[in-house]
Amino acid sequence: MEANPILAEAVRGNWVENRHRGAYVVVDADGTIIASGGDIERAVFPRSAIKSMQALPIFARQAEGKFHHTEEELALACASHHGEEVHVATANGLLTRIGLSAADLECGAHAPTNAASREALRAAGAEPSPLHNNCSGKHSGMLSVALAMGVPTAGYVSREHEVQKVVRAAVEAVIGESLTDGKCGTDGCSIPTFAAPLRAFAYGFARMSTGKGLPADLAAAAQRLFNAATTHPHLVAGTGHPDTLLMQAFKGRLMQKGGAEGVQCGAIRDKGWGYALKCDDGNMAASHAMLAGVLRRFADPDANQLALIETLAHQPIKNVRGAEVGEMRSVD
Amino acid sequence: MEANPILAEAVRGNWVENRHRGAYVVVDADGTIIASGGDIERAVFPRSAIKSMQALPIFARQAEGKFHHTEEELALACASHHGEEVHVATANGLLTRIGLSAADLECGAHAPTNAASREALRAAGAEPSPLHNNCSGKHSGMLSVALAMGVPTAGYVSREHEVQKVVRAAVEAVIGESLTDGKCGTDGCSIPTFAAPLRAFAYGFARMSTGKGLPADLAAAAQRLFNAATTHPHLVAGTGHPDTLLMQAFKGRLMQKGGAEGVQCGAIRDKGWGYALKCDDGNMAASHAMLAGVLRRFADPDANQLALIETLAHQPIKNVRGAEVGEMRSVD
Repeated sequence: MEANPILAEAVRGNWVENRHRGAYVVVDADGTIIASGGDIERAVFPRSAIKSMQALPIFARQAEGKFHHTEEELALACASHHGEEVHVATANGLLTRIGLSAADLECGAHAPTNAASREALRAAGAEPSPLHNNCSGKHSGMLSVALAMGVPTAGYVSREHEVQKVVRAAVEAVIGESLTDGKCGTDGCSIPTFAAPLRAFAYGFARMSTGKGLPADLAAAAQRLFNAATTHPHLVAGTGHPDTLLMQAFKGRLMQKGGAEGVQCGAIRDKGWGYALKCDDGNMAASHAMLAGVLRRFADPDANQLALIETLAHQPIKNVRGAEVGEMRSVD
Repeated sequence: MEANPILAEAVRGNWVENRHRGAYVVVDADGTIIASGGDIERAVFPRSAIKSMQALPIFARQAEGKFHHTEEELALACASHHGEEVHVATANGLLTRIGLSAADLECGAHAPTNAASREALRAAGAEPSPLHNNCSGKHSGMLSVALAMGVPTAGYVSREHEVQKVVRAAVEAVIGESLTDGKCGTDGCSIPTFAAPLRAFAYGFARMSTGKGLPADLAAAAQRLFNAATTHPHLVAGTGHPDTLLMQAFKGRLMQKGGAEGVQCGAIRDKGWGYALKCDDGNMAASHAMLAGVLRRFADPDANQLALIETLAHQPIKNVRGAEVGEMRSVD
């Protein structure tokens, strides 16, 4: 297997300590490659980076028509949220309205990603609930799809469940590729994740951004979801997270979503371009440095946006005493 | 730069999610390469993997002659310990005997690596002290060297301090290479770390293991340190850590020490071979899988040792609900 290029590296003092290889691609909705590096046809797991695609059945299966999801609930369906109060309340709000509860979530419980929320929960002597799981918005949305489809909610995370079948079909429709059981794993939140070429995920984001090449209902649903995410960036991740900060700074021009193990996907909406990148070794900080490289070159950042991008392109590495001893940086 | 080979990979379901490249080398005390993969001449930061080398001045500078370090204190000087009670007590014991205290440690404070110790400290409402820092044994040893040399202890972590000069000279003596300020960074615990060829660190371990090619006093000091570490493996890391488990299982035949950012070094003592490996991207779990590959092939493991090695060669990856969804595995 040919090695992908080094797209990020960690420097300590005056010497490179770690090297991070990866692939990236920027593509338009016709499938024309704007730029790329590395093997963009290699199948990668998109993990949480494509939650907006996985949320499409909320519209396609008329859950939205029946339950009238708020824009906040749609943003949270696209989110890997930090378990802050507003995230938990938003997920719980949808569940309550559709007659379900946290007990119906099959994502598992983990402590809030947000440190202050984690400490507050602990100080209160409370255990984390599935509502704190970063995926609880996506799962609440999937439960609403199950109800709208009139199928049992139990087991909705299984690959064989009707909900996961329609989620899979929606992803296939936007990325223009068949997903196969031969390249399938289980995600952190217990739903299936299918590997597909990196290029296809970027193409899917370009098509969701523009609607080009998609049936009218899918195109409309994609617009609703991207508008929800970019209007409520704090709901899509949380305080201080790059996805939130970037979408806030780009004021609707940018849809950006990370996925576990070094995946970054999104759309430069005003250009109609989608992008996707994967750090070969799964390092998230390195993937953010790689993302900075892509956005700096292709997202036409203004001065404020560029300043934010530079914080990802040069992330300080500190020692135990807090002294800055190196940096994770993007490599162009 | 030519890419190093893939030596570990993370699989999710039935598809490879992450790939980890690296280099490894096994060498004897004459410098003859027994086996290698990747670029073994590339300079890497050894980080904590060479604490046993950095502990040599305890003997060379007569600190041991003056303060009569116990074997436990010598093991802890080679350690990245987990801040368990015995680790803290051992570091504190040496400091007290030489008339110093935790206040003299310049490594900074961090919470114990051991989860139970961390929880106990928190439950007691206490803040972590520098004694809990995984490097407090090494730093206590360095303070004893400063006292034995009759130099001020303050600032002993600085590259210009006499203690760091003798530490640097000791490392140079065993690895047979000059260390240069042009390949230098600051370690997590604030002392300097110098990058040198991966091969040289393996060679240094082979020489420390056999004494071959070293002055008699250095050879004797190396034996004392390796004996201390392999006799007290729990002091060198902590409950459940691979370094501790491996040295326990090999009953003195193996000196093994990890370093931050994917470094593993050690000696197969009965063969007189040293080894060193570095995961290019710094992933520790991947470096343990790579280590398994080296030990499986070159350490002549018996059935019990092999069973332990296999737990590193195949490390389960679990999702939030605790289901096994993949593995980090070694690639031969």
